[in-house]
Amino acid sequence: MSQRITIHDIARELNLTTATVSRALNDHPRISTETKQLVQEKARQLKYRRNKLASSLRSGKSHTIGVIIPSAQMNFFGSVVHGIENTASSNGYSIILYQSEETTSLEKKAIETFLSARVDGILASIAKETVDYTHYVELRKRNIPLVFFDRTNEELQVPSVVIDDYRGAFLATEHLIKNGYARIAHVAGPQHIKGFRDRLSGYKDALLANNRTIVNEYIYQGNVSLESGKEAADYFLNLTAPPDAVFAVEDFTALGVIKCMKERNVKIPEDFGIIGFANENFDEHITPALSSVDQQTVQMGKEAFNLLMEIIKANDGKARVKDDTKIVLDPVLFFRESSTGKSN
Amino acid sequence: MSQRITIHDIARELNLTTATVSRALNDHPRISTETKQLVQEKARQLKYRRNKLASSLRSGKSHTIGVIIPSAQMNFFGSVVHGIENTASSNGYSIILYQSEETTSLEKKAIETFLSARVDGILASIAKETVDYTHYVELRKRNIPLVFFDRTNEELQVPSVVIDDYRGAFLATEHLIKNGYARIAHVAGPQHIKGFRDRLSGYKDALLANNRTIVNEYIYQGNVSLESGKEAADYFLNLTAPPDAVFAVEDFTALGVIKCMKERNVKIPEDFGIIGFANENFDEHITPALSSVDQQTVQMGKEAFNLLMEIIKANDGKARVKDDTKIVLDPVLFFRESSTGKSN
Repeated sequence: MSQRITIHDIARELNLTTATVSRALNDHPRISTETKQLVQEKARQLKYRRNKLASSLRSGKSHTIGVIIPSAQMNFFGSVVHGIENTASSNGYSIILYQSEETTSLEKKAIETFLSARVDGILASIAKETVDYTHYVELRKRNIPLVFFDRTNEELQVPSVVIDDYRGAFLATEHLIKNGYARIAHVAGPQHIKGFRDRLSGYKDALLANNRTIVNEYIYQGNVSLESGKEAADYFLNLTAPPDAVFAVEDFTALGVIKCMKERNVKIPEDFGIIGFANENFDEHITPALSSVDQQTVQMGKEAFNLLMEIIKANDGKARVKDDTKIVLDPVLFFRESSTGKSN
Repeated sequence: MSQRITIHDIARELNLTTATVSRALNDHPRISTETKQLVQEKARQLKYRRNKLASSLRSGKSHTIGVIIPSAQMNFFGSVVHGIENTASSNGYSIILYQSEETTSLEKKAIETFLSARVDGILASIAKETVDYTHYVELRKRNIPLVFFDRTNEELQVPSVVIDDYRGAFLATEHLIKNGYARIAHVAGPQHIKGFRDRLSGYKDALLANNRTIVNEYIYQGNVSLESGKEAADYFLNLTAPPDAVFAVEDFTALGVIKCMKERNVKIPEDFGIIGFANENFDEHITPALSSVDQQTVQMGKEAFNLLMEIIKANDGKARVKDDTKIVLDPVLFFRESSTGKSN
């Protein structure tokens, strides 16, 4: 049995009423200094710990936030959670963590739990599967502070923190151009996801801004996997005028391209340049080391928590953070061996 | 302002006392069926949600557990948390996540917070820095259910879930022997950490079990880093009779060994075999692909949660799970190119 000390124990030991003990602990003006000292001394002695649940009920604040991520097994989200928890902790907040496993049903269940636990706010990255957003809309109606990070839905008008995918893609593509590659291809991700759509736009605009033409057969529709990187590379090499560089939508796709090039004896970076996106932890250890775009995951976690805090405080003061508040983080490029330029 | 509906709102709308509404919602026998229906209907209409905090106070159960990990940025712990949260969620439990950042002070703070939040139990992996264990001892005294995972302290007599490091090391070393390597070295980790100590023992016993001698100069004391793997490899190659294989205490160390061997033109696996520990996600993508020992992270998370549940239930029934309960998971070996055998 749990041996938790309550105010009843203090009251019994001092032969006082629980009401008096409670008031003494809360520094109530009606209680004498002498009694207060007596109660505080006994509380220390018995190792009494104030019940946070009870104080939450009184204050209406739980100092807890709910966090929904697709999976803690994905490096990206583990790293964002690292940033969130760190910042939350130093602000006196705890996080309740839920994984959606990319399903809408677990996402809904997480929100139910958060509401029951009376969290002060929710941070969420939307599950891939989710197309029905009523559970999020409901949160807005109830005025529960909500911030999206990374995976957002613009139509919902929820404040969000994202990385500038467009700019990252633009800079990655321009880097290949500057390093002397002439025909730059792109392996794209599923286009119903905004981040991947933005990366395709960034790629196209970088070509145009540098007086290159957009060649439709140089854009391969992948599905964000090592396998689709291999398939894309195979497809590219079989074209009559193959490209000599690829900007891949993310690093596993880039890895697939590298593996296929190695099998077909195409030399990277001398004959073929490649840059990915995400700065996965294997990038610097593979051969050749893979250039990539870092998504500032820890920073994203910090910014998301801070934005949520602003909204919680604004709610208290009946002010309002704008629904379309959007914090866009700058991507950071890591140039490694895979894109250092053609040999001739 | 948060628009949370309370029983006061229901009471006001129906012109009843809050006591009546509360009893009606709790199906109290003194309340008429008619009133109950009226209250339930109004609760639905106002979208009233039962306050979990309040019910927790009544039941003494929060259906929440606290989880302490060193950092969510480490793949290993992200993956264990994945297993914990998954299992917790399907058992109707929420997890509050804290990172110690390898410091004792944040570990203590996490425990303070968990106690205030009245968690039903705590899962913890001990911070590297921690040598003073009073905060954990205190939990035991208060009879708060506690389970350690991965990083444990045997003297504390806390139930735990670990991987069989000894067996993993034994099998890894024996694999190198079976694949024809003659002189097998080990890059060890800090010996005050039990898991690393066990890996050294497993290495030694595998040699003895296969009629090999233990050569002291073949054991290099590293510090679990890529850098120390490089240093170890340098040291080994400069010996008058260098080893022809290494069992590295973990994969970053193994990676350091590989990098040094490449620089010094030693061919892996033809001239030199290598196997690591942890099955990091880069292992299969580097050249050569690195053999390793998988630590069953997701399974570890599941087992840890289930063991904690057993203790919580035993506490309720005043029974007791043995303090020295220890679940030891079997490691799974992944054999890849780096240890496929000598060429001659």
